Amino acid sequence: MIVLVLGGARSGKSKYAIKYAENLPNFSNFYYIATAQALDEEMKERIERHKKERGDKWKLIEEPLHLWEVLKNLEENSVALIDCLTLWLTNLMMKEYSIEESFEKFLQELKTFKKKPNLYVICVANEVGLGIVPDSPLGRKFRDYAGLLNQKIAELADEVYFVVAGCPLILKSP
Amino acid sequence: MIVLVLGGARSGKSKYAIKYAENLPNFSNFYYIATAQALDEEMKERIERHKKERGDKWKLIEEPLHLWEVLKNLEENSVALIDCLTLWLTNLMMKEYSIEESFEKFLQELKTFKKKPNLYVICVANEVGLGIVPDSPLGRKFRDYAGLLNQKIAELADEVYFVVAGCPLILKSP
Amino acid sequence: MIVLVLGGARSGKSKYAIKYAENLPNFSNFYYIATAQALDEEMKERIERHKKERGDKWKLIEEPLHLWEVLKNLEENSVALIDCLTLWLTNLMMKEYSIEESFEKFLQELKTFKKKPNLYVICVANEVGLGIVPDSPLGRKFRDYAGLLNQKIAELADEVYFVVAGCPLILKSP
Repeated sequence: MIVLVLGGARSGKSKYAIKYAENLPNFSNFYYIATAQALDEEMKERIERHKKERGDKWKLIEEPLHLWEVLKNLEENSVALIDCLTLWLTNLMMKEYSIEESFEKFLQELKTFKKKPNLYVICVANEVGLGIVPDSPLGRKFRDYAGLLNQKIAELADEVYFVVAGCPLILKSP
Repeated sequence: MIVLVLGGARSGKSKYAIKYAENLPNFSNFYYIATAQALDEEMKERIERHKKERGDKWKLIEEPLHLWEVLKNLEENSVALIDCLTLWLTNLMMKEYSIEESFEKFLQELKTFKKKPNLYVICVANEVGLGIVPDSPLGRKFRDYAGLLNQKIAELADEVYFVVAGCPLILKSP
Repeated sequence: MIVLVLGGARSGKSKYAIKYAENLPNFSNFYYIATAQALDEEMKERIERHKKERGDKWKLIEEPLHLWEVLKNLEENSVALIDCLTLWLTNLMMKEYSIEESFEKFLQELKTFKKKPNLYVICVANEVGLGIVPDSPLGRKFRDYAGLLNQKIAELADEVYFVVAGCPLILKSP
């Protein structure tokens, strides 16, 4: 199954995704796939905060770039929570990866989880397109790619939620 | 009938509006009213992309400013899709038109389509007020006008949708 | 009762909150608790506009900082509308108050209104986390605190609404 959890910054989207995962019955493996890299103090704090919010039941996989590889290696009866795709996009852009190719590789792998009841991939992503037009061309490019990725994953997903202040609005139901 | 489709940048709002229009039964004339002007390369690309997303069934009308004139001339049994009102506002501000007067003229014409089943006007607009306060007074003014316009049209509209990642949330139903 | 009304800039959230309050049956005292301070012309205009939107039925209390004191003094059979919490946060940050402590004091008082049918506190707040990441550390800090506050109040609230273009989406119902 593919679940997409969208939301703004500090909207409670990760917390909602974790709760969603932990309420799934009969799963034994919980993987938290972190795309964040602790490059500065601010980021380190965010990572520590997220770590505290998850319990011990989660195994951590750190993967800033090659998410498709992680998906390939998931065994049956697993729940994988990717937090988050918008940071992944940032990483891809910083490393000058081809965005289109990376999206394509990820979506190819993701597709195999559609409607598969014993394997859940829960993607967390930021909605970033609801402010005024960013000043910089790079900011606009980032915003375009982020929106495009959200659309593509939402199209593929079995369920989509939009979290505002910790409360989920259903965008797509199974 | 008046339909308002709101959404962020790259939220799939135009695509949703086009699909909505094409699913309306028994209409023969489809007008795509583009407010965009190809002033730079980035804009040209956006315009080309939108052109590809529409099929051949749509007749193109380019009108960056005088939308009220276009509405005046629509014949019966037409669907007019205005894409988008937020760019129209940008154009009005750049040309130093009176915003209040322009809104008033547009709304006066738009009003005549309310609950008229054989003439659809579908307005696409950006929601731009959900980021932090813009640094520049011009940015804040733009954001205020854009929000105000969305409110006024939503009040008049028969149907209002808020599109997130290609998925519509119903804000107002007929 | 605790009601949270969220929305973007010029989304119609204050207007909705006022309408909501005025439709409550059997209340005799209406307090409009303004956190705005008229420090510049732009702000003065906003305050004047909001004043016009409210009728005479509302008594005005101006309190930029110590909202917990205002809540403490509310008598039975009152409706208090706080407009808005995001400006309150701005004020706290400008005066270098401890944000965590201020939130805590406010939430302690607010809690006492939960499920109390003869005392309504309606909080208006901005959702500010749906644009791209702000350039400045201060902007990011503000955004984080605003999101956090919205989450905490939403968790406590009896009802939560997200207003887009004047139309409410229900995030939490009683």
